[in-house]
Amino acid sequence: MNVLIVYAHPDSNSLTGSLKDLAVSTLRADGHDVVVTDLYAMKWQAAADFTDFDGITGPDFMHASGEAYRSGRLIEDIRAEQQKLLDADLVILQFPLWWFTMPAILKGWIDRVFTYDFAYGAKMPRYGAGPFAGKRALVATITGGRIGHYTERGVNGSIDDLLFPINHGVLSFTGFDVLKPFVEHSAAHLDDQRYTEIAERYRQRLATAFTAEPIPYRQESGGDYTGVTYQDGSELVSGRESPGTSGFALHIVGSDRR
Amino acid sequence: MNVLIVYAHPDSNSLTGSLKDLAVSTLRADGHDVVVTDLYAMKWQAAADFTDFDGITGPDFMHASGEAYRSGRLIEDIRAEQQKLLDADLVILQFPLWWFTMPAILKGWIDRVFTYDFAYGAKMPRYGAGPFAGKRALVATITGGRIGHYTERGVNGSIDDLLFPINHGVLSFTGFDVLKPFVEHSAAHLDDQRYTEIAERYRQRLATAFTAEPIPYRQESGGDYTGVTYQDGSELVSGRESPGTSGFALHIVGSDRR
Repeated sequence: MNVLIVYAHPDSNSLTGSLKDLAVSTLRADGHDVVVTDLYAMKWQAAADFTDFDGITGPDFMHASGEAYRSGRLIEDIRAEQQKLLDADLVILQFPLWWFTMPAILKGWIDRVFTYDFAYGAKMPRYGAGPFAGKRALVATITGGRIGHYTERGVNGSIDDLLFPINHGVLSFTGFDVLKPFVEHSAAHLDDQRYTEIAERYRQRLATAFTAEPIPYRQESGGDYTGVTYQDGSELVSGRESPGTSGFALHIVGSDRR
Repeated sequence: MNVLIVYAHPDSNSLTGSLKDLAVSTLRADGHDVVVTDLYAMKWQAAADFTDFDGITGPDFMHASGEAYRSGRLIEDIRAEQQKLLDADLVILQFPLWWFTMPAILKGWIDRVFTYDFAYGAKMPRYGAGPFAGKRALVATITGGRIGHYTERGVNGSIDDLLFPINHGVLSFTGFDVLKPFVEHSAAHLDDQRYTEIAERYRQRLATAFTAEPIPYRQESGGDYTGVTYQDGSELVSGRESPGTSGFALHIVGSDRR
């Protein structure tokens, strides 16, 4: 299978860098074709602006990105990343958690590559369907904090909820089957034994990346939501959740967190 | 009072751009001193990397940022933004919601300006205390989607939960009193009458920015969490919440969402 790893860390000697290398070697040893988008090495431009659109300036930024995409006038670095996405069966986003989300350079990869009419659009289905349906995605991230701070009652909030805007809002939105994220904590307090344990856990996750059950996010057009198109209300139909469920858990089939 | 508006939109004719102009004129008319960080106009570098640290490379990226800060060796554009933060009584983050969070260029302002030992650190208190205690912050954002999609049962999830990693994880974390966000929807479907309504709502929010009650996020050292330092467990003490509360709402005093 084809794997795209989008990697964002300024230090190749970091744990994130080591795990990226591990993913490349593990997946290749398993016979997969692996392509790495190394954003820092590429000096990827993070800020999305009109210079991406070959002179197209209207009617607004979003629609200009769509016209540039449809007419083949997007800047070359974006087109190359879009082709990598189209070629991939599995996309891994490998990054350190900075301020509870991805580093700016990776957000800029999303902002610039996921253009209107390529990744989303007024007539495109969302959440469980869409342009990347049939592909899988895995967020692999490292925090500097302690694991107990990232539980539901932990002071930072649950890591699954903190990653919801990425896993649900970016990846499921555009059609990916989203795997349970690979998350390790306390990156600043790492000895050799802990690295060995982390590496082994990551190898196991990579080995099952094409077979593991994805997070059962509800599909927008699967009957769980009101309305039938992008333009409608799209609210969860009453009674679809276990009694007492609230928050982001409402949008996961079978979640009974309350 | 001193107000810093950090503004991130590539199109000055956008609704976000108009609301930024409105904030500047409204706040100045009320006698406040207003400084604007216009990230696109400044061609702000979004990607945080070692070039910010005047040759300091270790022991890791985070601690290098701290050493560069402490020794006054941070690159000039970061030092200028840090001074603006120190001078501000109110910080407004004005941006369009792209993929359920801030645009990369604004995330890059956070990543680069909020360095170790300036905005956070091993010995700094967090959540309700910290370096920016006594200052206020307001997220002012615009979505392209429909309001019904951003409720708790809406397909995107609740806007308050989507903004939690920013309001709680960035702003409350570093000590700000965080105001209820100003959010408007359907930016792509705007006529003059709706603009007038939105502008009036924004003016009212700006008029009360120094008096409105902030979001009552729990303070980490306020007795609601186990442990007393950054290094401890810091989990919400059993029974502090209304029965049945779950998710991010656990971390807000008096929330009884269930």
